[in-house]
Amino acid sequence: MPQSPIRKLAPYAEDALKKGKTIYYLNIGQPDIKTPQIALDAVKTQSLDILAYTRSEGSEAYRKKIAHYYKKHHIDVNHNHIIVTTGGSEALLFAFGSIMDIDDEIIIPEPFYANYNGFSVASGVKIVPVISKIDDNFALPPIEAFEKLITPKTKAILICNPGNPTGYLYSKEEIQKLADIVKKYDLFLVADEVYREFTYDGNTHYSILQESGLNEHAIIIDSVSKRYSMCGARIGCLVSKNKQVIETALKFAQARLSPPSLAQIASEAALETPQSYFDAVINEYETRRNVLIEELSKIQGVKVAKPKGAFYCIVELPIQNADDFAQWLLEHFDVNGETVMVAPAAGFYSSPGVGLNQVRIAYVLNTESLIKAANILKEALKVYKN
Amino acid sequence: MPQSPIRKLAPYAEDALKKGKTIYYLNIGQPDIKTPQIALDAVKTQSLDILAYTRSEGSEAYRKKIAHYYKKHHIDVNHNHIIVTTGGSEALLFAFGSIMDIDDEIIIPEPFYANYNGFSVASGVKIVPVISKIDDNFALPPIEAFEKLITPKTKAILICNPGNPTGYLYSKEEIQKLADIVKKYDLFLVADEVYREFTYDGNTHYSILQESGLNEHAIIIDSVSKRYSMCGARIGCLVSKNKQVIETALKFAQARLSPPSLAQIASEAALETPQSYFDAVINEYETRRNVLIEELSKIQGVKVAKPKGAFYCIVELPIQNADDFAQWLLEHFDVNGETVMVAPAAGFYSSPGVGLNQVRIAYVLNTESLIKAANILKEALKVYKN
Repeated sequence: MPQSPIRKLAPYAEDALKKGKTIYYLNIGQPDIKTPQIALDAVKTQSLDILAYTRSEGSEAYRKKIAHYYKKHHIDVNHNHIIVTTGGSEALLFAFGSIMDIDDEIIIPEPFYANYNGFSVASGVKIVPVISKIDDNFALPPIEAFEKLITPKTKAILICNPGNPTGYLYSKEEIQKLADIVKKYDLFLVADEVYREFTYDGNTHYSILQESGLNEHAIIIDSVSKRYSMCGARIGCLVSKNKQVIETALKFAQARLSPPSLAQIASEAALETPQSYFDAVINEYETRRNVLIEELSKIQGVKVAKPKGAFYCIVELPIQNADDFAQWLLEHFDVNGETVMVAPAAGFYSSPGVGLNQVRIAYVLNTESLIKAANILKEALKVYKN
Repeated sequence: MPQSPIRKLAPYAEDALKKGKTIYYLNIGQPDIKTPQIALDAVKTQSLDILAYTRSEGSEAYRKKIAHYYKKHHIDVNHNHIIVTTGGSEALLFAFGSIMDIDDEIIIPEPFYANYNGFSVASGVKIVPVISKIDDNFALPPIEAFEKLITPKTKAILICNPGNPTGYLYSKEEIQKLADIVKKYDLFLVADEVYREFTYDGNTHYSILQESGLNEHAIIIDSVSKRYSMCGARIGCLVSKNKQVIETALKFAQARLSPPSLAQIASEAALETPQSYFDAVINEYETRRNVLIEELSKIQGVKVAKPKGAFYCIVELPIQNADDFAQWLLEHFDVNGETVMVAPAAGFYSSPGVGLNQVRIAYVLNTESLIKAANILKEALKVYKN
């Protein structure tokens, strides 16, 4: 079982805190945004006297409301196409288990969300990476690069859109290219769309289930975690119009009995969150992104792919090894007692030796903190010796 | 992925309800007992404004309180031996993943909790059953029967104590026999102890971690689901003093990020549940068991293993195929518009063709309903033609 790249640094962060340092956490995707009040209130005003199992696939009322949410996003599904899961994590596990046997392969553009590695090990399947490049802003690699990797064991292509850790938003044309290849080779296209709402510069998200002809191939992974700043709820869903996928995923869901009941109440209520909440949140993230990219681009030798969505970016630094640098920042560096914690990007690549000089930065802090954090990086790079 | 044996009947139950029949649900382990008020209140009075991730292994405060709970039960562990999981289900998945590789084997006395099958498929490992018999009240099979099944691929023995679906409570001597064999062959002993408190006739539970010399071998699977009638919370834990097991399980925990946050609040508060709650609950279940066993023993041709714990029993019926009988009860039988739903026991056996004439009954209904349900079974057996 691989360790998440973010976790290796935790002991150094603990030591830094013990020494009285302040840390700006740019390493994790835990937003500081408040959960919608309507969701918090729903938990407080419910009147259950038994916290009983819910249906394994999630309550019908909640799934019907989720279907309505998708319709508003031009994704035409009904509640029978939806299985409520314990976070997007479990939706991924169910998807891997439902479409692959032991030793089967799934192609994923790298860098990718590091926990995909853990889910592949847990499911006994193999991730085959196809590299996307910072110089292309992490756009979809050429389709020929995918085709070269397809073997009889290949069962699916997985994308994260908008991307963690890249912040890249796939265009309609890119989704159509992926649609063509999965139809040509009869593969599944799994899309982790948990950051659907987080798009900037007026760009809109194009879901794989908006693409016609993909009904038998498309599986959406979704979650309330980031959308409503409810990471701790652990509610997500798997969405597919492929009956066999849903039937198989349901067996996995039944084996673990039920998703959490209180969190489903919060998540159902969260669907009533007013648009003004999202407008404010997206505006805040876009501002943060702009500030962060501007500050980073002032630092000599730093290259950054400007994200179009989600709240991460991959930053290339004028160093040799970001693992060492990130550890050094915690152990040996500070500006007036303050330092930063970043996620070395090598853990987001499956190919060995790639991304060693890159880090992932999550802009989940307010702009004032982001400016301070970027300044700390700038000062650190002045004195850091590889 | 195998289907849970309880699920196959669901469509027939739906049809029966549509026809206006009343169903006594003896098929599932969803108690009708109220959740402790202290746990329900904790959720209503918390004042989180962000439902954030908790630590992957569960909050330290909660784990310290769990350790204190174990000490009261003569199980000497501290919070570092505990990983909070999303239900006992996830604790089982983590245990399977942490101690076995693909194709490894785990020996389990059958009949066993049917979802173990699902977790073994999800983990790519093989369950090797060793039969326990209704005529022995489902006591531990002879150790020689285990020894015959041990191969180089065998990594563990798994027991459920008190047992679902048998209600059997292993004696201290039986646990010691298992301790000897896992030490002799260097195996893990995994014990699903979620029904720890549910013991009757003055018997007490003996945990595998009360047995000395098992620290490197023992893994406890636990859950708040039945203890506090909080099945929907989805909070459990994995407990082991084996450092490597905890370190590996932690990686699985980190990959899925966090257990549910609201449910951890409820579960932490539930640890303050007064003893009077348990006294009343255990007394209620013991009464239900006595009533159920008495009523069933009045029926000609019925054999039942008297449970010493949990709230299930395996009942042998004078029929050939319990699958057909259970379906027939829903489709074609009623007493004054009322019928019963039972779980055919074959799904709790891994060996083919065993337990075909047995059902599992969960005594999770009040005594009045149990008497009516037993009477319906009695009348049904009078007219049922194999």
